[in-house]
Amino acid sequence: MDSVAGTPARSRMRRSPSPELLALLQRKFADRFSTSSAVLQQHGTDESTYPPQPPDAVVFVCSTEEVAFVVRACASERVPVIGFGVGSSVEGHLLAVEGGVCIDFSRLNKVLAIRPGDLTATVEAGVTRGQLNAALTESGFFFSVDPGADASIGGMVATAASGTNTVRYGTMRDNLVSLTVVTANGDVVRTASRARKSSAGYNLTQLYCGSEGTLGLITEATVRLHPHPEAYAAAVVNFPSVRAAVDCVIESIQMGVPLARAEMLDALTIRAVNAHSRTTLGESPTLFLEFGASRTQIDEQAGIVREIAAGHGGGEFQWANRQEERSRLWTPRHHAYFACLQLKAGSRSLTTDACVPLSALAQCIDETQADIAEHGLLVPVFGHVGDGNFHCLVLVDPHNAAENEAAEAFSHRLVHRALRHGGTCTGEHGVGMHKMKYLAEEHGEHGVALMRSIKQALDPHDIFNPGKVVGA
Amino acid sequence: MDSVAGTPARSRMRRSPSPELLALLQRKFADRFSTSSAVLQQHGTDESTYPPQPPDAVVFVCSTEEVAFVVRACASERVPVIGFGVGSSVEGHLLAVEGGVCIDFSRLNKVLAIRPGDLTATVEAGVTRGQLNAALTESGFFFSVDPGADASIGGMVATAASGTNTVRYGTMRDNLVSLTVVTANGDVVRTASRARKSSAGYNLTQLYCGSEGTLGLITEATVRLHPHPEAYAAAVVNFPSVRAAVDCVIESIQMGVPLARAEMLDALTIRAVNAHSRTTLGESPTLFLEFGASRTQIDEQAGIVREIAAGHGGGEFQWANRQEERSRLWTPRHHAYFACLQLKAGSRSLTTDACVPLSALAQCIDETQADIAEHGLLVPVFGHVGDGNFHCLVLVDPHNAAENEAAEAFSHRLVHRALRHGGTCTGEHGVGMHKMKYLAEEHGEHGVALMRSIKQALDPHDIFNPGKVVGA
Repeated sequence: MDSVAGTPARSRMRRSPSPELLALLQRKFADRFSTSSAVLQQHGTDESTYPPQPPDAVVFVCSTEEVAFVVRACASERVPVIGFGVGSSVEGHLLAVEGGVCIDFSRLNKVLAIRPGDLTATVEAGVTRGQLNAALTESGFFFSVDPGADASIGGMVATAASGTNTVRYGTMRDNLVSLTVVTANGDVVRTASRARKSSAGYNLTQLYCGSEGTLGLITEATVRLHPHPEAYAAAVVNFPSVRAAVDCVIESIQMGVPLARAEMLDALTIRAVNAHSRTTLGESPTLFLEFGASRTQIDEQAGIVREIAAGHGGGEFQWANRQEERSRLWTPRHHAYFACLQLKAGSRSLTTDACVPLSALAQCIDETQADIAEHGLLVPVFGHVGDGNFHCLVLVDPHNAAENEAAEAFSHRLVHRALRHGGTCTGEHGVGMHKMKYLAEEHGEHGVALMRSIKQALDPHDIFNPGKVVGA
Repeated sequence: MDSVAGTPARSRMRRSPSPELLALLQRKFADRFSTSSAVLQQHGTDESTYPPQPPDAVVFVCSTEEVAFVVRACASERVPVIGFGVGSSVEGHLLAVEGGVCIDFSRLNKVLAIRPGDLTATVEAGVTRGQLNAALTESGFFFSVDPGADASIGGMVATAASGTNTVRYGTMRDNLVSLTVVTANGDVVRTASRARKSSAGYNLTQLYCGSEGTLGLITEATVRLHPHPEAYAAAVVNFPSVRAAVDCVIESIQMGVPLARAEMLDALTIRAVNAHSRTTLGESPTLFLEFGASRTQIDEQAGIVREIAAGHGGGEFQWANRQEERSRLWTPRHHAYFACLQLKAGSRSLTTDACVPLSALAQCIDETQADIAEHGLLVPVFGHVGDGNFHCLVLVDPHNAAENEAAEAFSHRLVHRALRHGGTCTGEHGVGMHKMKYLAEEHGEHGVALMRSIKQALDPHDIFNPGKVVGA
């Protein structure tokens, strides 16, 4: 089966570049071209539990024109072209299942423009979110989207990424103004103007956002910036149940409180972070909250949330205002992923990504925890409550086939549960190879047929990241 | 030329339904089928300055299945199918340039679900924004997108509409969760789950949003709701120049003030509304502002904006807090369109829709007013300053060819000016027939080629609203 982690289809036909094509790329890129096995291996590996599937060659591009050159060269032989940002994807997105040429974007990394007057910035696709925010330090503005990894902006666009402050500032989709993409002909297209809104034709920007390198390659992005609020405050509070914690966040949102962050960690996750960070948090479902506003607004917002929390049996709020204190208070959340991995020595995580309507979130997590208990699994759960999105870290010994199978079976049940609740198989990680089999259930056969006809129209020879999203 | 108002292509081949197809529709829809000339005329007319182009028949649908039936029937003869909401589009969107069957959505108008726990509602496409907000009265929530007309939600999705509170709550694009669409095969597709975010495949929702009925027909929409703030306050303030008014809004946004509305009316517009509404506003560029928050937050926000306004030579703020007072204060803005029409007896308006990056807005309006003066035109200007979007009402006698030509020439210069400033030919009205000729300039030939290939893939026989957006 194509999509069970650990057993990707090795039976796919390989479409490797000819010696002539490799020679052409070597002449063009010189020391920015590589076929060394270490480089190939690295570029065929992501953060999923799939074994590596290396490409045939890697080129390190420095311009949109170079990307277009590679695409045209590969298109002439129908050789696959796969984009690579920092390699932090988690669903097998970048595995070269049919071989081909990997385009590494890490040197296409200039911040091209920062426009405080427009509240936008334009960056090359290899710029990471950390790099962009470093460049913005003096400006009073920041780029909001914050997935766990310091991912490249291009990769974040390609997967429609989001993160902890999506509850306030939206996902990558909501923070995009325009893209530059290279199409299957090697043509360069700017998907939109720099206006904040437009009704001028089909929305190419949003079509490429979330297309995971299967419709073209993103080389530049113009993104929205947000002004830093006057002040921030962070808080941590325990609840007697997941439902109580979730309801506290939803009611706060319904009251119009513009929470800057609202993360829920379940009791097992808290146990893991206590062990990892030597904290002494109460081992029950816990909310990590952040407020960003003026001092008086923060007081007002905090008052509302405290009252709502009390109504749901929430405990005392631990507060932090100054930056170092806030960082310290939030450390358990920031370290949750690695803390959880240490619950089981030598483990890797199969990380789920269900996202459901807000009103179904508590029920969906409850049912999921009952499933975990029933199957005797070790699965910490935490989530972006304000988005209805939660992650289960299914800890497995990567060499234990039975454990991997049980993890996949759990993930499978969870996806169906999310779909039953009106949700999606992936809130922010993307489809890659791992979620392909669920698209028809989520969108219907007709929906997938529409997606396939778009793929066929924009990439008729299936050169862009084959074997991902809807396939050929 | 296809796209000059008043002279649409009459030379297009008409693809009228056969007598058999008309008989089939008549049997199916009985008294919800019409070929009466009054009904045809009404359904071939929008708010543009184009002369009417009636379809061959109109059906009034009551379900998604009926839409699918009509599409399948028409597809069998490659007869055009054109959706009709309330007929408030302004760029010739719904003119039956090749004949065909018009689907009137006004009876597909049930509010299917209101979900306060999810902050969403699901409506049939013919529900108007006013109808949805009436249904939400008791809920504490509202639907935010507010174009001038009481448009249908389906029509607003199809044109990616926006309005006066987009500065705070975003456009139709930002307030969409999922759509139900009927494709060219007559298949029914739900474009997404009800989760608040998803990375599960290509973004069909945003592809259909703004597609103006050319890729399929929208029959249902799940939209986001927002909680009413605790309080509102409205303010009106004069400025010595357009630039001063615009800069006041931009700086307020840069300071993070969440303005609920920020509309600029130029001196001529104020003169028109003074005459129309018997107000005595100072005839200089004027901002109409709205704040929505808690009382203390409004005071804080108002303090910041007042200080910024003073720095730009802004006059005294006139305030209104209670609803009736606020409505009265904003009346001139609400009546601006009709007040402006009365500047010239018997006139119609060719209404422009340029949208540019915020930092270019003042300059673009200044240049536009210089153009107006140079050509001796009568053109009030007002705009959604926080979005960079402004409208010029070019008042013309519809029977005066020279005036119409001068208006078109002005619109043409304005579009080029907006594109030079990094903007778009249409911020919220859509392409229809009138803006088709600008798409290649805005998106490049390769961008339009991508759009055409999407149209070809999703509507291979060009049955959906032919002659609009990118054409066949």
